[in-house]
Amino acid sequence: MKLVDLNCDLGESFGAYTIGADEAVLGYVTSANIACGFHAGDPLVMERTVAMAGERGAAVGAHPGFPDLMGFGRRNMSLLPAEAEACVAYQIGALWAFAQRSGLRLQHVKPHGALYNMAAKDRALADAVARGVSSVDKELILLGQGFLLDAARDAGLRSASEVFADRAYQRDGTLVPRSREGSVIRSREEAIARTLRMVEEGRVTAITGEDIPIRADSICIHGDSPSALEFARSIRSALERRGVAIVPLSRVVL
Amino acid sequence: MKLVDLNCDLGESFGAYTIGADEAVLGYVTSANIACGFHAGDPLVMERTVAMAGERGAAVGAHPGFPDLMGFGRRNMSLLPAEAEACVAYQIGALWAFAQRSGLRLQHVKPHGALYNMAAKDRALADAVARGVSSVDKELILLGQGFLLDAARDAGLRSASEVFADRAYQRDGTLVPRSREGSVIRSREEAIARTLRMVEEGRVTAITGEDIPIRADSICIHGDSPSALEFARSIRSALERRGVAIVPLSRVVL
Amino acid sequence: MKLVDLNCDLGESFGAYTIGADEAVLGYVTSANIACGFHAGDPLVMERTVAMAGERGAAVGAHPGFPDLMGFGRRNMSLLPAEAEACVAYQIGALWAFAQRSGLRLQHVKPHGALYNMAAKDRALADAVARGVSSVDKELILLGQGFLLDAARDAGLRSASEVFADRAYQRDGTLVPRSREGSVIRSREEAIARTLRMVEEGRVTAITGEDIPIRADSICIHGDSPSALEFARSIRSALERRGVAIVPLSRVVL
Amino acid sequence: MKLVDLNCDLGESFGAYTIGADEAVLGYVTSANIACGFHAGDPLVMERTVAMAGERGAAVGAHPGFPDLMGFGRRNMSLLPAEAEACVAYQIGALWAFAQRSGLRLQHVKPHGALYNMAAKDRALADAVARGVSSVDKELILLGQGFLLDAARDAGLRSASEVFADRAYQRDGTLVPRSREGSVIRSREEAIARTLRMVEEGRVTAITGEDIPIRADSICIHGDSPSALEFARSIRSALERRGVAIVPLSRVVL
Repeated sequence: MKLVDLNCDLGESFGAYTIGADEAVLGYVTSANIACGFHAGDPLVMERTVAMAGERGAAVGAHPGFPDLMGFGRRNMSLLPAEAEACVAYQIGALWAFAQRSGLRLQHVKPHGALYNMAAKDRALADAVARGVSSVDKELILLGQGFLLDAARDAGLRSASEVFADRAYQRDGTLVPRSREGSVIRSREEAIARTLRMVEEGRVTAITGEDIPIRADSICIHGDSPSALEFARSIRSALERRGVAIVPLSRVVL
Repeated sequence: MKLVDLNCDLGESFGAYTIGADEAVLGYVTSANIACGFHAGDPLVMERTVAMAGERGAAVGAHPGFPDLMGFGRRNMSLLPAEAEACVAYQIGALWAFAQRSGLRLQHVKPHGALYNMAAKDRALADAVARGVSSVDKELILLGQGFLLDAARDAGLRSASEVFADRAYQRDGTLVPRSREGSVIRSREEAIARTLRMVEEGRVTAITGEDIPIRADSICIHGDSPSALEFARSIRSALERRGVAIVPLSRVVL
Repeated sequence: MKLVDLNCDLGESFGAYTIGADEAVLGYVTSANIACGFHAGDPLVMERTVAMAGERGAAVGAHPGFPDLMGFGRRNMSLLPAEAEACVAYQIGALWAFAQRSGLRLQHVKPHGALYNMAAKDRALADAVARGVSSVDKELILLGQGFLLDAARDAGLRSASEVFADRAYQRDGTLVPRSREGSVIRSREEAIARTLRMVEEGRVTAITGEDIPIRADSICIHGDSPSALEFARSIRSALERRGVAIVPLSRVVL
Repeated sequence: MKLVDLNCDLGESFGAYTIGADEAVLGYVTSANIACGFHAGDPLVMERTVAMAGERGAAVGAHPGFPDLMGFGRRNMSLLPAEAEACVAYQIGALWAFAQRSGLRLQHVKPHGALYNMAAKDRALADAVARGVSSVDKELILLGQGFLLDAARDAGLRSASEVFADRAYQRDGTLVPRSREGSVIRSREEAIARTLRMVEEGRVTAITGEDIPIRADSICIHGDSPSALEFARSIRSALERRGVAIVPLSRVVL
């Protein structure tokens, strides 16, 4: 039986500021990537988000980002590998405290925004992230793409590869940058069909036409708009109709 | 045999900014209170400080403060108890990650600055701090004064009472505020004699002349000046000459 | 002819986070209190908010708060008067830069949240705020309540007294704390009638039944919900029907 | 008569943290670049530094940096040009407030650290910085290197070119990166001789041996060590012995 995880970024509110429809999206996902206070999130938000994810049965993971609240962690920053490693460890620890309080274990780590994108393409940064994870807890799964997966494996961690339902891929398996035409799959039917094929066959058609292999341990779900939620629902039912079991990451990557 | 711990605040540097003579003071103390990034400290500083404390044989503890880097955690802030509790939990978790990386266990938690002072006198805030500690790890010792000790006990934690060698006490066992005359014991000999008596007899003479009981599980040491270090050395030798064993907190409060 | 200003807090978004319906509320107010980056706001948000206020004909003023983004400036903090003064000056200067860029002059300063509430009741803090304003620009109007008005006058500034349409007053002219029953006027008709009387007669009925004098240079408008906007519209039309001219603060306090 | 300015970064302390020997270095420089709270500095530090510079007769300028206190503004960050522009404007305004309080005018703006280095090589970022300056006050001088000078000119600002006494130059007039051998001139005599020639003849020998033109409106002085201060003293006396007048930037670039 095919297994796949659905993951979503959560807990990105801060103080008086609210972002995301965390409660609604928890109805669809099996793994929650929870912001840890650097690019988003604060202690009270983390507390509530971990507790809510636990109640709804989603596995919890850390979603560490660059120390850049004003930029929401989306701006590239040139941290030294040792700085990045320590920032990742710090954020995992902070979230761990709230998992302890809710009687939960952390399942995974998925870097956020610019840290994710830079590490996916920069092996030294990916290694720093992986060391930041493995040095704190070797049981954590590192969820990502590109070099993050290689780095996880070399650091003795389980890695999980995520795919995007509505994004086009290049021949080498990386995403077509959003600035390029055709980067986003606008047809919902096509997006769902592509997703099913990635999960069931491990293959996708690149923007250049080739059929390429792709590993789909988890599907990234967005929860920032009603249409995103509607899309999440469609993906879920399409997968379930095909008999794919939707389960937390820890049951997908053993 | 009498046992006492010597504790010191460490890891209060931040980025390009250096405060404290951490390496030097680690020659004198048995417990290190390490800043966690809210009032001072950053991930790299925490990494180095935990590692250094471990190498020098000092037990490591979290030193959580208010989220106020500009005020170094010394300004009173009116956090709700739930906010204070979550802030304490967050900071303990963050430091825990670095203890994991160094193969160490966290021994204790000592609140910093205004959080310490306010909680010592405000039972609701003290309870919030104690819950922030106990919910993360029931084995942690809460080091402090006043209501922090009561709150620790009621939260099922071991508590440890610290004393100050160079400060005068009021009849009720609280410190004479620095703004009042006579609040600081200026004579080194007197400070040492008072400290020995607090440790050996559990008694001290209040500023009003009464002899009052005081519990001295740990002596707070400052490391911010050459004279503070010289004083630490004197305290240590005076204690050792009297046969008092200087040991980490976890051996004092069982 | 009676004159009154309507003021509203604006520009409280931050980075990826949005708060408030700034564009909508600018249809109703004559003075905009713009956050300056300490409790809310960031450089890009300030840029856009000043430009938008200018286009819509609202006078712009600085809305300085405590350096506490996580608490949205609503938590009491014990800054020294010199710190508060420098923080106020800093924030006015920062907003001044954007006024320069839009070819506008700053009209006023209204402290935010806990800084406002504390200064209204603490003369030393009020003096610090007033000095922070007057030392940067003596032409600025200080908008507030309580000791802020006295401090403004003594610092050689024009002061402006604001009133709240939907809040009950105590006998001494201060607001009934929100925690007390009857603190909020729930009937829209009653709120509007009270506001008209405060503007036209300079009097209001205190919660204890006495008729007390009150100075209404400006009415504080909220823009954080559709019903708040609806209320603003009602206030405006009620005032206009009575022939009260709604004008920026600089035309009310000469 | 030859004129040259000596500039130094000042006011980089923050809260309880002290960096730099501001008072000492003010004995040697004619222009003070004062940190504005993003990479370093806080309102009280800015207040004191502006006042001290004014008393010592140094002209004051803004030293805006990236919003990265933990990285001291030395880490590259990918801000959009509009973000960089607004960040520069914000910081100039903040410092302007303290100049107002001390009865001084801002003379210049020198970007800090990574913002300086990136803008010197990236015309779009340099233009953003220049617009951030010119939109606030067209009388400000933009002090820097590379594209910052071109951008200043095109924005209608006066530009000032700074040189480094102890750094080697490449054939194109840019600094040899610190990572390359020979990047730092270790001999004090050679550094002084090179500086005199840059000021008097407008020429320097590149690391590749060519004699290249260089514009020396200001010499960058460091104040972070006793030897830096000693070097500043030597440079000053060497210049004075040769009859070069050491004056604030506004008298060098007219």
